[in-house]
Amino acid sequence: MKYGYQKILNEKFENVDKNIREQLSKVGFGVITEIDIMKTFKEKLDIEYPKFKILGACNPVLANQALDIQPEVAMLMPCNVVFWENEDKTVTLSAVDAEQQLRATHHESLVDLGRDVNAMLKSAVDSV
Amino acid sequence: MKYGYQKILNEKFENVDKNIREQLSKVGFGVITEIDIMKTFKEKLDIEYPKFKILGACNPVLANQALDIQPEVAMLMPCNVVFWENEDKTVTLSAVDAEQQLRATHHESLVDLGRDVNAMLKSAVDSV
Repeated sequence: MKYGYQKILNEKFENVDKNIREQLSKVGFGVITEIDIMKTFKEKLDIEYPKFKILGACNPVLANQALDIQPEVAMLMPCNVVFWENEDKTVTLSAVDAEQQLRATHHESLVDLGRDVNAMLKSAVDSV
Repeated sequence: MKYGYQKILNEKFENVDKNIREQLSKVGFGVITEIDIMKTFKEKLDIEYPKFKILGACNPVLANQALDIQPEVAMLMPCNVVFWENEDKTVTLSAVDAEQQLRATHHESLVDLGRDVNAMLKSAVDSV
């Protein structure tokens, strides 16, 4: 998996949901968007889907720095942290590789910012 | 600007906001997340920021196809459409380059899907 940092956890989905929010908060990231894939696919497509969420994590200070450099970087925000329940009831938890994403901007300061963000997101994922 | 499709519009911010939602809907994309940067930065950083929004656009059928191929692709969802008010009161409107984003997956079917998504998003942006 080349575009994020991933772990598989022997933990209930609901606990991962709760814990990753707490850990993101500890490293300065709020959850600014949230998509419940299971619920959305039930409503829109009438299909049963495994438990699956996409949280959009944002540190306002870093977001402000990034947008000052290049407002278009908003297209790559927020940083997604995703998790889903596997068939064996383990949970896969992944945080997007912000550094790799920000390479698309061809702006060295933004890539450096992405590296800092990655360290924070990795720390949050590792603490769950 | 290398990672999205962009236009500058002689139109009020509020009209762009209303019109892009309508045009996204016409090409099958709902707005599933929304970030009001001006409001968020006022609340979190107590700074005055120009009018600026990030809409997360999603076509559930295509999202389902993509997640079936590789669930990690959720880290790159939804597709962001962003717009902000410039000092001269024009509005810059941009849609992320989904094809380029999905190249990170190294999966040809996902890159093809990204190409289709780009055509839809471009059509929506061009109709505003």
